[in-house]
Amino acid sequence: MGEGSEAETGNPTRKRRGGGRAGSAARRGSAAIAQSPWRIPVNIDAPTEPLGEEGVAAIHEAAMVVLEEIGVAFLNPEARGILAEAGCIVEAEVVRFGRDFIAEMLAHAPAEWTLHARNPAHDLTIGGRHILFGNVSSPPNYWDMDLGQKIPGTREHCANLLRLTQYFNCIHFAGGYPVEPVDVHASVRHLDVLFDKLTLTDKVPHAYSLGAERVEDVMEMVRLAGGWDEETFTSRPHLYTNINSTSPLKHDYPMLDGWMRMARRGQGLIVSPFTLAGAMAPVTMAGAVVQSLAEGLSAIALAQYIRPGIPCAFGTFTSNVDMKSGAPAFGTPEYMRATQMTGQMCRHYGLPMRASGSCAANVPDGQAMWETSNALWSAVQSGANIVYHAAGWLEGGLIASPEKFVMDCEVIQQIQRYLEPEICATDAGSLALEAMREVRHDGHFFGIKHTQDRYSTAFYQPFLSDWRNFEAFQQAGEVWTAERAHVTWKRILADFTPPPMPDANRAALEDFVVKRKQEGGAPTDF
Amino acid sequence: MGEGSEAETGNPTRKRRGGGRAGSAARRGSAAIAQSPWRIPVNIDAPTEPLGEEGVAAIHEAAMVVLEEIGVAFLNPEARGILAEAGCIVEAEVVRFGRDFIAEMLAHAPAEWTLHARNPAHDLTIGGRHILFGNVSSPPNYWDMDLGQKIPGTREHCANLLRLTQYFNCIHFAGGYPVEPVDVHASVRHLDVLFDKLTLTDKVPHAYSLGAERVEDVMEMVRLAGGWDEETFTSRPHLYTNINSTSPLKHDYPMLDGWMRMARRGQGLIVSPFTLAGAMAPVTMAGAVVQSLAEGLSAIALAQYIRPGIPCAFGTFTSNVDMKSGAPAFGTPEYMRATQMTGQMCRHYGLPMRASGSCAANVPDGQAMWETSNALWSAVQSGANIVYHAAGWLEGGLIASPEKFVMDCEVIQQIQRYLEPEICATDAGSLALEAMREVRHDGHFFGIKHTQDRYSTAFYQPFLSDWRNFEAFQQAGEVWTAERAHVTWKRILADFTPPPMPDANRAALEDFVVKRKQEGGAPTDF
Repeated sequence: MGEGSEAETGNPTRKRRGGGRAGSAARRGSAAIAQSPWRIPVNIDAPTEPLGEEGVAAIHEAAMVVLEEIGVAFLNPEARGILAEAGCIVEAEVVRFGRDFIAEMLAHAPAEWTLHARNPAHDLTIGGRHILFGNVSSPPNYWDMDLGQKIPGTREHCANLLRLTQYFNCIHFAGGYPVEPVDVHASVRHLDVLFDKLTLTDKVPHAYSLGAERVEDVMEMVRLAGGWDEETFTSRPHLYTNINSTSPLKHDYPMLDGWMRMARRGQGLIVSPFTLAGAMAPVTMAGAVVQSLAEGLSAIALAQYIRPGIPCAFGTFTSNVDMKSGAPAFGTPEYMRATQMTGQMCRHYGLPMRASGSCAANVPDGQAMWETSNALWSAVQSGANIVYHAAGWLEGGLIASPEKFVMDCEVIQQIQRYLEPEICATDAGSLALEAMREVRHDGHFFGIKHTQDRYSTAFYQPFLSDWRNFEAFQQAGEVWTAERAHVTWKRILADFTPPPMPDANRAALEDFVVKRKQEGGAPTDF
Repeated sequence: MGEGSEAETGNPTRKRRGGGRAGSAARRGSAAIAQSPWRIPVNIDAPTEPLGEEGVAAIHEAAMVVLEEIGVAFLNPEARGILAEAGCIVEAEVVRFGRDFIAEMLAHAPAEWTLHARNPAHDLTIGGRHILFGNVSSPPNYWDMDLGQKIPGTREHCANLLRLTQYFNCIHFAGGYPVEPVDVHASVRHLDVLFDKLTLTDKVPHAYSLGAERVEDVMEMVRLAGGWDEETFTSRPHLYTNINSTSPLKHDYPMLDGWMRMARRGQGLIVSPFTLAGAMAPVTMAGAVVQSLAEGLSAIALAQYIRPGIPCAFGTFTSNVDMKSGAPAFGTPEYMRATQMTGQMCRHYGLPMRASGSCAANVPDGQAMWETSNALWSAVQSGANIVYHAAGWLEGGLIASPEKFVMDCEVIQQIQRYLEPEICATDAGSLALEAMREVRHDGHFFGIKHTQDRYSTAFYQPFLSDWRNFEAFQQAGEVWTAERAHVTWKRILADFTPPPMPDANRAALEDFVVKRKQEGGAPTDF
């Protein structure tokens, strides 16, 4: 009934806590809550496909016309030079692509690829039928129920959200900064946050493409944290970047710079056009998807030309604006359909796909959960392989919240359970004829052997949902979900143990951060 | 900018309210909120099918073995007599059915049938790809945010929830009592509630199968409300009943009695076994579905023998218990899969299908909305035709709540919008090449003609979701979803106008209620 060996927890001085309940939770890695085990979910459902064959062909054709006739602006001379060399037509900042070139480049892109974490148990295969979930990334602000207020993020907020990222088995990778720590100067922010991320988690990390120094620093820090030599590091992906186009039909300088640097060193690449229908993309969902494809495929073609076979994924971030306020809406019917349509196009091109958990809600309430449920289920329905922002997102991505993080993890765990084929098994034991012969028309199934043999694993067990009746709920103080989530994340943090890291790797990381800070960090004039 | 003609609102003395905003809402039928128009949604998605062909065959085979070997207890001598006459094997209370008889009876059951409302605009076709939504039915208790407390339902609570049922265009039918009015004596409760239901709504109503007098009274009241003669009334369905088996494998006396009475008068029949895996059904989902099929198909076979071709539907109410507390759980991964599996079996048998919106949550919070979202989306994924309890359900069906009702309607409206094929149109206008040629790499799409021509109908418009940014949300008082829903249902009720009813029909209804009360109503000793 312990909490795992010291080698597992990596903290020999940690105090033992709890007994019975904690004991059973401990088998899953922690005493704070009884969560689901780490697993790589396989999406067993046929994807939902709103487009017919002719719809897929029409969207493909339109995307090719955009690439050929309108082109995409590349605000990076080096990228334009490479594309000119590749035979694309470059006029001022605009690059036009032949469809044959696009097809040839896409043919190099692997349908499946693996990200190698510093903890090999957390390696991730991207593509196929895998579906992986990551934390919220990049909100400038933070909200929790103690504060009851939206405030700029800090390093401590960021670190706490990284602890949750590491803690939850249903979260597979550590995306961008779970909140932007604006109390750390922008020139050295990447150094401090990556140090926190790499020491508080052992899951696959992300690098922002925000200038040469940051990208190179982060790659180096990931290499040091893993203790890999340069050859091993560049021989396979250990981290990934995600770039957004500057819609309409434009890629900016630093994003392309990071994209090319990561490509050259063999790391994972995701491009996610932020095509908001009615604002920076056409008001029609098909039009917004066409534009996103032109933007994304042009970046993937560039990467494949630089290093054929480099791992890429296409991200959808197509939603609609609220036509009253102009604010982005998320988890809407249109968002769900755009995600599904993009899934069809990704399969058409043989590219792994990224989608998101998202909502427009400002607080972790009912609206937040129906919007996020819509978004997460549409990721499942679309056959997405990577689900960004899956836990902790509020206010269209402007707020990160630990309560929302915990609530989302309950939903994600249920999605992961939903994808276990055992639920729908129809072997003789599952058909349960013998059990029905035993119980017949009276009595119940609680006590029989068929039930006793299976009950402990038969059903999803929540860690946050309150399934008791109203009277028990009332007696426990009528604690609504967000308040329960508040207690839960505090308990998790109180109980958190960082993953182990060899002393040499940690020292190398520390030295690197000190050195780069002495050098002034990264420029902040981009 | 008025509120529709007097003929439309049916209330010539109603005061005009509001102006601009109310005016645009009025075009949709009311000034209280701007809701989506009435429509019969068609489910355009291919159903999610977790079972392969062999899985469907295995479940069918097991259900047939249960019907042939174990049988179903029919606690109604008349029903047993009819089934004995039909050639079934009757031993004491248990009836065993040959699979050929079941197949022969199922062949009579129509795949699609129509319920005729007293307002023909609210006629409903059950089956095919239609998906229809109804209010929460039968909770004994009521909760709202003024009370902040669970209390036994009253006639006023019930009437208010009926007003919401009528008000929302996304709610297609008036299910069972939206809350049980325990302040009305059980002997006359059906008279008062049906009077309220038939005068406050003009949507298809439901009758409980709770004893001969109630069923016959309700049929008579529905006939009077519609002003139909007996021949017209019995020539086509105008209402429906829903019976639950008494799992395991048992039908009780009054349910069967009502079932047979409704069958004889040609009304709609739904059987929904309440098969709670691990309690009154096997702990495995396939086993629970097998048992539910045996229970439901046996009742449908009885109805088809009594009146071949009588409209029937099969309802799933298969979920799992919380193995810690024994309480039913809803909207779980297992619930979703059981719903989808049942959808496959309904298509196998050519039967329209009923599913539910449901949750275990006690209050209208985050958990309530992820559980209800899971349940509602699984109804869509299963190809369900009728979605019971779709709005207003809490605490596993023990509480009805107007806040939850309003929140659920926002989710249902989004589902209905999601099912509009226009979202995924790929005609030339939707592909938007001309728009992209116009905007190119700079500027935005807000002002262009392509957007202006489409923006007012391009996206779902919420009535409850707050899509503003945090600052605007804060300035408006940081009102969480449940509190907004509270304000919304009060506004709707303040603004409610009952549908028109000819004076003669109303007088006939009133007379009938008086007469039946003088006769003592219905016995309460069942």
